[in-house]
Amino acid sequence: MAYRIGIFGASGYAGGELVRLVDGHPSMEADYLGAHSKAGTTLGGVHPHLGGGDRALGTLDPAAAGDLDLAFLALPHGASAEPALALLERGVRVVDLGSDFRFDSTARYEEAYGTAHPHPEELGRWPYGIPEFFRTAIAGSDRVAVPGCYPTAAILAMAPLVGAGLVEPTGIVVDAKSGVSGAGRSAIPTLMFGAVDEGVTAYKVLTHRHRPEIEQALGAVAGSPVEVVFTPHLVPMQRGILATCYATARPGTGQADVEQALAAAYRAAPLVTVGTEPPITRWVVGSNRCLLSAHVDDRTGTVIVLSAIDNLLKGAAGQAVQCANLMLGLGELDGLPTEGWMP
Amino acid sequence: MAYRIGIFGASGYAGGELVRLVDGHPSMEADYLGAHSKAGTTLGGVHPHLGGGDRALGTLDPAAAGDLDLAFLALPHGASAEPALALLERGVRVVDLGSDFRFDSTARYEEAYGTAHPHPEELGRWPYGIPEFFRTAIAGSDRVAVPGCYPTAAILAMAPLVGAGLVEPTGIVVDAKSGVSGAGRSAIPTLMFGAVDEGVTAYKVLTHRHRPEIEQALGAVAGSPVEVVFTPHLVPMQRGILATCYATARPGTGQADVEQALAAAYRAAPLVTVGTEPPITRWVVGSNRCLLSAHVDDRTGTVIVLSAIDNLLKGAAGQAVQCANLMLGLGELDGLPTEGWMP
Amino acid sequence: MAYRIGIFGASGYAGGELVRLVDGHPSMEADYLGAHSKAGTTLGGVHPHLGGGDRALGTLDPAAAGDLDLAFLALPHGASAEPALALLERGVRVVDLGSDFRFDSTARYEEAYGTAHPHPEELGRWPYGIPEFFRTAIAGSDRVAVPGCYPTAAILAMAPLVGAGLVEPTGIVVDAKSGVSGAGRSAIPTLMFGAVDEGVTAYKVLTHRHRPEIEQALGAVAGSPVEVVFTPHLVPMQRGILATCYATARPGTGQADVEQALAAAYRAAPLVTVGTEPPITRWVVGSNRCLLSAHVDDRTGTVIVLSAIDNLLKGAAGQAVQCANLMLGLGELDGLPTEGWMP
Amino acid sequence: MAYRIGIFGASGYAGGELVRLVDGHPSMEADYLGAHSKAGTTLGGVHPHLGGGDRALGTLDPAAAGDLDLAFLALPHGASAEPALALLERGVRVVDLGSDFRFDSTARYEEAYGTAHPHPEELGRWPYGIPEFFRTAIAGSDRVAVPGCYPTAAILAMAPLVGAGLVEPTGIVVDAKSGVSGAGRSAIPTLMFGAVDEGVTAYKVLTHRHRPEIEQALGAVAGSPVEVVFTPHLVPMQRGILATCYATARPGTGQADVEQALAAAYRAAPLVTVGTEPPITRWVVGSNRCLLSAHVDDRTGTVIVLSAIDNLLKGAAGQAVQCANLMLGLGELDGLPTEGWMP
Repeated sequence: MAYRIGIFGASGYAGGELVRLVDGHPSMEADYLGAHSKAGTTLGGVHPHLGGGDRALGTLDPAAAGDLDLAFLALPHGASAEPALALLERGVRVVDLGSDFRFDSTARYEEAYGTAHPHPEELGRWPYGIPEFFRTAIAGSDRVAVPGCYPTAAILAMAPLVGAGLVEPTGIVVDAKSGVSGAGRSAIPTLMFGAVDEGVTAYKVLTHRHRPEIEQALGAVAGSPVEVVFTPHLVPMQRGILATCYATARPGTGQADVEQALAAAYRAAPLVTVGTEPPITRWVVGSNRCLLSAHVDDRTGTVIVLSAIDNLLKGAAGQAVQCANLMLGLGELDGLPTEGWMP
Repeated sequence: MAYRIGIFGASGYAGGELVRLVDGHPSMEADYLGAHSKAGTTLGGVHPHLGGGDRALGTLDPAAAGDLDLAFLALPHGASAEPALALLERGVRVVDLGSDFRFDSTARYEEAYGTAHPHPEELGRWPYGIPEFFRTAIAGSDRVAVPGCYPTAAILAMAPLVGAGLVEPTGIVVDAKSGVSGAGRSAIPTLMFGAVDEGVTAYKVLTHRHRPEIEQALGAVAGSPVEVVFTPHLVPMQRGILATCYATARPGTGQADVEQALAAAYRAAPLVTVGTEPPITRWVVGSNRCLLSAHVDDRTGTVIVLSAIDNLLKGAAGQAVQCANLMLGLGELDGLPTEGWMP
Repeated sequence: MAYRIGIFGASGYAGGELVRLVDGHPSMEADYLGAHSKAGTTLGGVHPHLGGGDRALGTLDPAAAGDLDLAFLALPHGASAEPALALLERGVRVVDLGSDFRFDSTARYEEAYGTAHPHPEELGRWPYGIPEFFRTAIAGSDRVAVPGCYPTAAILAMAPLVGAGLVEPTGIVVDAKSGVSGAGRSAIPTLMFGAVDEGVTAYKVLTHRHRPEIEQALGAVAGSPVEVVFTPHLVPMQRGILATCYATARPGTGQADVEQALAAAYRAAPLVTVGTEPPITRWVVGSNRCLLSAHVDDRTGTVIVLSAIDNLLKGAAGQAVQCANLMLGLGELDGLPTEGWMP
Repeated sequence: MAYRIGIFGASGYAGGELVRLVDGHPSMEADYLGAHSKAGTTLGGVHPHLGGGDRALGTLDPAAAGDLDLAFLALPHGASAEPALALLERGVRVVDLGSDFRFDSTARYEEAYGTAHPHPEELGRWPYGIPEFFRTAIAGSDRVAVPGCYPTAAILAMAPLVGAGLVEPTGIVVDAKSGVSGAGRSAIPTLMFGAVDEGVTAYKVLTHRHRPEIEQALGAVAGSPVEVVFTPHLVPMQRGILATCYATARPGTGQADVEQALAAAYRAAPLVTVGTEPPITRWVVGSNRCLLSAHVDDRTGTVIVLSAIDNLLKGAAGQAVQCANLMLGLGELDGLPTEGWMP
């Protein structure tokens, strides 16, 4: 018998991936698909690549969804809080891909989003959905806040080193390169083919909202504050994030120490692989995996960790399903692709 | 218990997709991976996106493969004949993705390839592996010749119309646009990023080997000779074929006739869908599906059928697995992706 | 002393190319830049790649432009007629890149656009701006209607053969592949990077407005009606059109006849080159050239001509400047790029 | 009367751009085109986008070139030294786009290239060809070593800040993203469309030869050693480099200081523009310009400078022509494109 799953925000890119993953999941069934402006239309109109195109898109009203075992919310920032709490009230487990419940303090939330949180009492109650670090908390919770795509890539790269004290907690630079799907599906001039193809640019330099999130998660692992400079870049490709992370080596830290720390951190994490070569994002696109490589420069005392993920899978929908698997007591990798797409 | 599968030519693009599909297949197990120049290395070196990267690549020698239930051959033209016959001799079913056994006569083979066939006695003994038209023959055979990627797209578009006598058997034009993976994985100047990106070109105009193959298959369905002009084009994308097929309407043929003929032909074919909008290749990339749309121009008496497939799946590895499923008595769609990848 | 040039519609893609060409032209000076919704802003905001970014964008009001020698109109369909006539009234030569004055009869205009023409008395008074065929008329006129991008590619390919009676006037197929800039600069969902990249599709099958335009121009050259099936396709690249044109050879027409007809037609046309290899669009992108290759199939009696242009240059802004050069008595190639951009 | 120019290495990407620029230059004439493996063929075979395709490609033998006023060498590393010295011997000015003469000491050369320099007596005699910093030396020399593409981008970003003492000389990170043309034109597996399209990767992490070159140039400006970590990345686009440069602010350095230092440095440099927005590489692709933007993070004490160039123009052929203009007493911008290509 399959768990009844609701997907709110089914018309976006992450929503489409959620539908695809749930459709192929051995123990889940997409019972309700909710959308905002596309409510009242059908799935095929927004995701022609998916099967069951005549399935209806309902509204985002939790009451319309009927009985569910678990709901995924893939909604714009600020839009998750109300439906999430309403669903919990109805006894539905919630996996929120949005940013509303990722922070553990109103201060950090306000730093990132510039507004007061509508439900400050909820902050800190939502495990941060990276199973590689917070598996137990996720498994025991009825609500999980899935990290942003950039934070996932950066945290998987740096948390083991920060946690082991191999690098300084300040002076960390995360220079990330993302495919265009990370910017969402809205038809805006800067995301047109004519604007994006054949060019690369940085954006939201020093102001991107994922920076406080990265600092919070790394700080949680380190047990003390961590300071990060984060620069996201837009690369002319559909999917994939490569995070090139720089940190200052603590005295005595060498290549072997870094490799050992990463190996130890991911010994029991089948989706994170530490390689010796710089990963190409395409090696993971289509899968829920993360590939890392570490490079210590003894000359300058710098540690570089490269981290590649699929921003819509390990960076969003795939990680959400991984969390849901834990919350429902299923196998952590059930229904998750572990082989990528090439060419 | 899974069938023991051998994949010969595992290092190419189609070979990689075969490994991926067999790895994910509920009733198949990749028991042997053979390669030519990459023999002696490991899978991870040629397909870093796949799991089990430490699996060995053996030679193309059938004897080295041990006991197999079925072998896929994804080898260059001319390289299949010998291993195919040796495998059959050893009692192994053979699904050949190459062109060696696609033709039913030495004349046509020589027209396409310019050389004498090494085993003319085999010609005509290999069912042509489009299950939508030759399901029974495929299911009952121990050997199948999988069509080329362009012929698959063209035949699925035109065979029902040719077969129903709705269009003239001469004057057919197949103008096909393919992603670059269709040209293979060799490092040659014309396939470099610098040569391909941001440009489109026709190639092998009037001389491409898939033309006689299309004519043979359409002629087999029509019961009389069919004449085709075929122009392949290279488009700057990884995967996908769009075949824009033009034919002269027989007097009286209208839009409804064409739609009915296509609907009738594919009523029992879950992978072929006839839509009303021109398909975008990306709607099928990643899946084993074919999307068609038909457009009859009463003004000029022209029938246009658009056909979109993933050249590596429905045009190669996916279709091969579909044939193998039939040969092994499995569900025709077992292990086959039916939802595509977007964005 | 430079001619004073006005560019109306300077904020679009063709408008930007007009500014760039006029800026680099030895005898022209961009005296006035007009825009619709961007009026009141500066050039740098819409074309950051151009110099003189602080130049003001005025309105589309001809009176605001002051004294001009010649005006280019790069406006949406239907928006040219009024400003064009007002400019002519003021004694300003007009080169219209839009479609308002391309047709020679109200019937054909209405067939293409479905509405009555606002100034039917003007139809037939505007030379059709392909200098290769209508050089004298263009040079002697104060008003020219520049062809669409697809018609330019198709007409350069087929007019010499139609004109010489080498091919049948019916059964002509123009299967064209265009870069995305041909679809304009509006931020609409179908032109987003996420929708366009890595896919190919046909669009406006049998309904594109350039079909009647192609038929009119080919008919004018042939001296009798010509019938064309036209299928445009969107290819994931910024620029370039490849038109693959098919026609039925008249009895006796062979490869040499076709090559001679093309060579004769373009002996005095420095921008059109007939090669032996299928052209890649990138060989002409960045230049005002057209590359052709011809391929006669004696087996089926089919003539194929491939035609490659840069849709924004020879297909729009470059051809407009070529016409303006003739109208102003300048050298036909003055200020026009004849070498492309690679890689 | 035009200067007689020789281009050695005309068949590569930079060589093709040199031919295009010299063809369009008001005071230069491409008198000799030399190539290695393509000697004996014609220009059109290697650069179908250029005019004069029937021009012969000669050998790399300086004696074969006849009388020249200036020669550009666009040859692989290690191949410039001998022809450069032979040309100088014959009284020909030399602009070397290769790396043979960029270093000022054998130690640094050996650090970068791992071999002894064949002509150590020449080291230090070749002005480093960034006119923005070394205009006088270049103008007075008969030999110039043009910087690598990455060093050009990095030095233009950081030299003014290092020189003004606004940032620390250690802890500088240059994270650079390059189009594929920067990797050259050889047909190797890692540069195939299938390997590059839709992915991003770092390469030669900590080992790229441009790092010592960046350190030397920044150190020369600073007057004391500078330490850099340099990570190049391959982005799926033809052209363009974006260098994201990070440095530690010296105490007291704020946004205004950085902007003033950049403005002062480039007041008399028409090709370098300091903007407020992060530049997109496409704003400069096709031109010889460099766009910069600076972003100071007071929170972490970090200075970020973004630098965008066309790797084949300001990063190679364009900068070489800029140097040649100075050496020949011509206008510095003669024949150089200052407007880019969009879309």
